[in-house]
Amino acid sequence: MVTLKGGYTGKILRVNLTRKETRVEELDPNLAAAFIGGAGLGIKLLYDALPAGVDPLSPENVLIFAPGPMTGTDAPCASRMAVVARSPLTGGLAVALSAGHFPAELKFAGFDAVIIEGKAEKPVYLYIKDGEVQFRSAERLWGMMTTDTQLFIKEEVGDHNTRVACIGPAGEKLCRIACIINERRAAGRKGVGAVMGSKNLKAIAVRGSGKVKVDDPQSFSSVLRDMHKLMRDDPALYPGLSKVGTSAAVDVTSAMGIWSAKNWMDTGVFSPVDKLGSQALDQFTIRRNPCYRCPVGCSQVRLARSGRYAGVLSEGPEFETIYSLGTNVGVDDPFAVIAGDRLCDEYGLDSISAGVTIGMALELCERGILSREEVDGLELRFGNAQAVLDLIVKMANRDGFGDVLADGSRLAAQRIGRGAERYAMHIKGLELPAYDIRGAKAHGLNYITSYTGADHNRGYAFQEIFGVPVPEPVDRLAVEGKGKLCKWNQDFSAACFDSPPFCNFLNSVLGPEGPRIVAGLLNAASGLSLSPEDIWKAGERIMNLARVFLAREGFSRADDTLPPRLMEEPIKSGGSAGQLISREDLDKMLDEYYEARGWDKETGLPTKEKLVELGLEYTAEAVEKARTALRK
Amino acid sequence: MVTLKGGYTGKILRVNLTRKETRVEELDPNLAAAFIGGAGLGIKLLYDALPAGVDPLSPENVLIFAPGPMTGTDAPCASRMAVVARSPLTGGLAVALSAGHFPAELKFAGFDAVIIEGKAEKPVYLYIKDGEVQFRSAERLWGMMTTDTQLFIKEEVGDHNTRVACIGPAGEKLCRIACIINERRAAGRKGVGAVMGSKNLKAIAVRGSGKVKVDDPQSFSSVLRDMHKLMRDDPALYPGLSKVGTSAAVDVTSAMGIWSAKNWMDTGVFSPVDKLGSQALDQFTIRRNPCYRCPVGCSQVRLARSGRYAGVLSEGPEFETIYSLGTNVGVDDPFAVIAGDRLCDEYGLDSISAGVTIGMALELCERGILSREEVDGLELRFGNAQAVLDLIVKMANRDGFGDVLADGSRLAAQRIGRGAERYAMHIKGLELPAYDIRGAKAHGLNYITSYTGADHNRGYAFQEIFGVPVPEPVDRLAVEGKGKLCKWNQDFSAACFDSPPFCNFLNSVLGPEGPRIVAGLLNAASGLSLSPEDIWKAGERIMNLARVFLAREGFSRADDTLPPRLMEEPIKSGGSAGQLISREDLDKMLDEYYEARGWDKETGLPTKEKLVELGLEYTAEAVEKARTALRK
Repeated sequence: MVTLKGGYTGKILRVNLTRKETRVEELDPNLAAAFIGGAGLGIKLLYDALPAGVDPLSPENVLIFAPGPMTGTDAPCASRMAVVARSPLTGGLAVALSAGHFPAELKFAGFDAVIIEGKAEKPVYLYIKDGEVQFRSAERLWGMMTTDTQLFIKEEVGDHNTRVACIGPAGEKLCRIACIINERRAAGRKGVGAVMGSKNLKAIAVRGSGKVKVDDPQSFSSVLRDMHKLMRDDPALYPGLSKVGTSAAVDVTSAMGIWSAKNWMDTGVFSPVDKLGSQALDQFTIRRNPCYRCPVGCSQVRLARSGRYAGVLSEGPEFETIYSLGTNVGVDDPFAVIAGDRLCDEYGLDSISAGVTIGMALELCERGILSREEVDGLELRFGNAQAVLDLIVKMANRDGFGDVLADGSRLAAQRIGRGAERYAMHIKGLELPAYDIRGAKAHGLNYITSYTGADHNRGYAFQEIFGVPVPEPVDRLAVEGKGKLCKWNQDFSAACFDSPPFCNFLNSVLGPEGPRIVAGLLNAASGLSLSPEDIWKAGERIMNLARVFLAREGFSRADDTLPPRLMEEPIKSGGSAGQLISREDLDKMLDEYYEARGWDKETGLPTKEKLVELGLEYTAEAVEKARTALRK
Repeated sequence: MVTLKGGYTGKILRVNLTRKETRVEELDPNLAAAFIGGAGLGIKLLYDALPAGVDPLSPENVLIFAPGPMTGTDAPCASRMAVVARSPLTGGLAVALSAGHFPAELKFAGFDAVIIEGKAEKPVYLYIKDGEVQFRSAERLWGMMTTDTQLFIKEEVGDHNTRVACIGPAGEKLCRIACIINERRAAGRKGVGAVMGSKNLKAIAVRGSGKVKVDDPQSFSSVLRDMHKLMRDDPALYPGLSKVGTSAAVDVTSAMGIWSAKNWMDTGVFSPVDKLGSQALDQFTIRRNPCYRCPVGCSQVRLARSGRYAGVLSEGPEFETIYSLGTNVGVDDPFAVIAGDRLCDEYGLDSISAGVTIGMALELCERGILSREEVDGLELRFGNAQAVLDLIVKMANRDGFGDVLADGSRLAAQRIGRGAERYAMHIKGLELPAYDIRGAKAHGLNYITSYTGADHNRGYAFQEIFGVPVPEPVDRLAVEGKGKLCKWNQDFSAACFDSPPFCNFLNSVLGPEGPRIVAGLLNAASGLSLSPEDIWKAGERIMNLARVFLAREGFSRADDTLPPRLMEEPIKSGGSAGQLISREDLDKMLDEYYEARGWDKETGLPTKEKLVELGLEYTAEAVEKARTALRK
C-alpha cells in the first residue's frame, strides 16, 4: 500500500457553495501515483465528478484549483496550479495554469486541491486560513476590477500577505473568454473565469502558515542540484528568458516567419520586431516579478512611458499578448499593447481570446461584412489601437457590440452569420495563440489535437520553435514524423510540467532528463517509487483520460481540425512563405498521431486495449458508447 | 520655559534632496505654543525657510509635511497633515490638508514635521522607518500612477502596512494643479504635487512602531468625553455625514440654489439631485473607509455598476468632485463622475481644479472662442462625459490641448487669449469650489481673502451653509457683518482645525466649544497651559503670518477679488436667484473685514500694531516694505 510522506499535504478541500458546506477529504495515494497532481489530478477529479453533458455555466459544473506535490517545496518554478472545469468556451476540458504566489500559499494552507461545487445564492468569496474556511459576502465586491478586488479583500481580512484569486466584471457577466486573476497572473484560457462567475464566487483568498515537508531532504536536494545545473547550462533560460521575458520569442518567431499578424492574413508581412521585440520592450521594463521560489523570474512589469497611454503599467505584455493585442490587430504601439494587457487583466478577460476575437471583428469590418452601425459606430480597422481598447471594455461589460464578441470568436461568428465563421481563428472554440502553425507542423498538430483546443502549452513543440534536437532533430516544415513527436510532447508536458507542476518554460531545458528529475523529486518528497517510465506512463494516462472526457462530450476526429484559412491560404511572406497545412497534410498527421497513441483512426478515440494498459478500464464503457454513437 | 511633555514628538526631520542629507531637529516648544502644529507650524516653518520671490518649482522652494499634536493620539478625526509650500498655482501659500493613515504613521515614526529641501538629481523616494531615513531610487517608478506606485513601494520595502504619499504622472510633469495622494486621499490643491515633482521626489513611504504619548491621560480622556458628546449630539454628523458622506451637502446646497453648474452659468438651473445627490450615490457605496481613529468615517468607496464605466471604483466622489467633474461640466451620470474621480486620483490631479479648468474649456468651445481643431478634435460641450475623461488624461500627460490646460484655468486662459480670462473661474489662480458664493456671502468673502485663493476649507462659513447660529444667526444673503464673521471663521479654522489638526467637518459640531476643547486637549497632552483665548490668538497669529507671506510676494487688497462673472451675472434660477456680489458689495465686505482684522484698508496688509500684538514683530519690516511698494 502506498502512503504519501511529503510533497503532498494529503488533503483535498471540497466546498459546496449551494449548501455553504465544506469538507476535507484524504487524497488517495494511488491517485497521486497515477496522476501526479496539478492538471493530471484535476482532470481525474473532474472526470469522476461530472456526468456527461453538464452545462459548463450551471451549478453542476465543478471548478478545481490544483497545485501539485512540488508546489511550495524548495523545487524551483513549481508555484503553479491547474484550474480545471468543463469549459464554457469549448465544451471540452478547461485546464488553465496560473502561477505566482497563490499556488504555494494554497499548499501552505494545507491543500493539494480545492474542489468547488454548486452555486452560491448571492456573491461570496472564500477565505481559507490554514485549515479553516469562511464563506464571506462578496456582494459589495461584485462588479469590481481585479486589482481593487484583491486590495479590498486583503484590507477586509486585515492581512496583506493573503493571496487572492478572483474574477473581474467579465467573469461575473459570464463572458466565455473570462479568466481568473491572482496577483497579476492569469489562469487565462477556456473561460474558467465564467465558470467561477456562474457560481457567484468572486474570489478565493488564502493564507497558510504551514510548510510543505519532503520525506528525504537529502535525495531531494541532490536531484535539485541536477535540475539547477541543467537550468544554468541552458543557453536561453538565464541569458534570455530571465533578462527579457517571453518577448525573446517574438524575435525568434518573427525571424522564422511564424509570427502571426492581422487575423492570420499577414504572417511574415507585419512583424515589427523593432517596435514590439525584446529589445524594444525591454526599455519599458521596470521590474521583474518572480513567482514563489523561481530563480528565473521571466515576468516583466512594464510601464507605458509617453503618449496617450503614459502611466499605464502591466505585468507583461507576454509574448502571446504582444501578438493578440498587437500584431494580430495591426497595432505596433507597445504602449497600446501594455494598456490592452492591463485592461484585460483588470476586467478579467483572456488577452489571447479577446485579441483574436477582436481581430476577427476588424477583418469583418474591413471586408464590409459588418457595418459601422453594427459595431456601435467604432472605426474598426487594423491598427486602430483605441478602438481595440474600447472593444475590450465593451466585451467585458457586454455593452452593445461587445456583447456579440464577449463569448469568443466561434460564438461571435455564429451570431454574425454571413460567412463570418471563415474568419474565426479558433480550434474547438479556443482562439489560436501566436505561432503560425503553418510553419511549425508538430506545434500545429498539438493545437489540433489538444484536449483544450488551440493551446500552445499542453505539448509545446520546442523542437520546432527553438531548434532543440530533443528527442531528435526535426524539420519544422515537414509533415512526416509529427504524429509521434506530438504524442511525445503532450505526454512529456502532462507528466513533467502540467502535473507536478513545473513551469512549461523548462521543457526544452530539462529535455529528456525531465522524467528522471520528476521521478527523483517525487520519490524523495513523497516516498513513492516511480521510475522515469512510470512518469512517461502517467503523462500518457492523463492524455488518454482527457481524451475520454472529450469523447464523452461527443468530440472525435472530426473536431481535430483547423480554421479553413490555414488549410487554404499559404503564408504570404517571410521565413515560412508558401507554407500551409493542407487537408491532406492534416489527415496524414492525424493518422500518424492516432497510431502513435493507440487510438482508432476512424473516430480518434482510445482503444480498449490502450485504456486497459493505462489502468483506465473504468472509462472503457463510456468510450465504447461514444464510438458506437459516432459510427451510427 | 515651556517644555513639551507629549502630543508632540518634539522632532522635525529635515531632508535635503540635493545633498542627500537628513537632519533631525528639535521642535522649539515656543513655536508649538504659538502656532500649535499642522498648518500653523507649517506656515511658520515655510516663512522662516524662504526668502521672497522663490520660484515655486525651483529647488529653492521647500515642501513641508506637518501632522499636529493631536495626530496619532486617541483624539478622533486628527489623523491629518498639512502639506505646505509656496504654491506654483497661485504664487501664494499652498496649504493642503490630507488625512487617512499616513499622518498618524508619520507621528508613530517620530516626527512632528518633515521639511523637504532641494532637488534630487534623479527620481527618488524617501523611506522613513521609525527614526531612520533612506533615499531610494524611484527611477523605475517614475511615470507610474498612484495606486501602482503605492503597491510597488510596499512590495519593495516588504511591508504592506507601510503608508505612502506619492505623486502621479501629473506631479512629475509639473502640472500646477497636481496633487499628492496617500492611500486614496489627496493633499489636493494649490499644486503641491508639482512642487514634489519639481524636487524629483516620487513618494514618501513611512512606517513607525512608536506611540504618541500624552502627558495627562486622565485630563485628556475627560476632554475627549466632552468632544465625543458634542459629536454624538450633533444632528448632522452621525445621521448624515457618517451615513452618506459629503454627498449630503449636495442636497443641502442644491436646495439653497448655491450648487454651481456649467462653469457657473447655470447655478440653480442644472442641479440633478436625483442623479448625483446623497440618495442617488448611496446606492453605489460599497464601503466606508475611515481615517485612523475616526468614528465618523465619512469617506465612501463607490463602484460604477453599469454602462461604459462599469467596474470603475473610487473613494468618493466627494461633494466637490460631484460638482467639478459633474454639474460643472454638465455631466449628471454618476458613473462618469466616479470614473473621472478615479482618473484624477490615479494621475494625481486635483479634481476641483481639473474640472473647473475643463469647464472653462467647454464654455470656450461652445462660445466658438476655441475651435475643434485647437482641442485635438475632441467634441467639447457640456455633458460630454467621455470628452471630460479624455481631457483629464491629456492634462496629466501634457498631451496636445491638455498641455494648454495642465496648469489650471488662469494660465490656460492667458495662453488662449481672445478674452478667455473672463471665463476662468478662479481666485488668485485657485479654481472655485462648488458653493456658489453669490448666495453665501461670508463663504464668498472667505474665498476672496483666503491666503490660498478660492479655498472652502480655510474658514468655512458653516453658519451660511448649514444654518448653524454660531456665534450668532446670520442671513446668508446679507453683506453686512460678513467681514467680522469671516475673520471669526478663519481664525477658528486655523486654530482649531488646520493646526491641531482636526477634521474640518467638526467645525459646526464643536462650534464655540472648539477653542476650549483644543486648549484642554493640547494642555493635557503636552503640558502646555493655554487658555481658549490663547487658542483664538494662535488662529489670528497664523492668519496674519500667512497674510505677511503673501504680502512679501506682492499680494494686496487688489488681489482680494472675484471672477467678473460673479460680480456681473446674477444667479439665474432656484433658491438664490438674482444674487450676485457686486463690486460695491465686495468693497464693503473687504473694508469691514480689514477693519476686523486690524489691517489697513488701502493695501489690505496688517498694521504694525497688530503684528506686535501677535508676537510677529519680526515680520514688520517686510510688511512695511510691501506697503511702501504698493503705495508707489
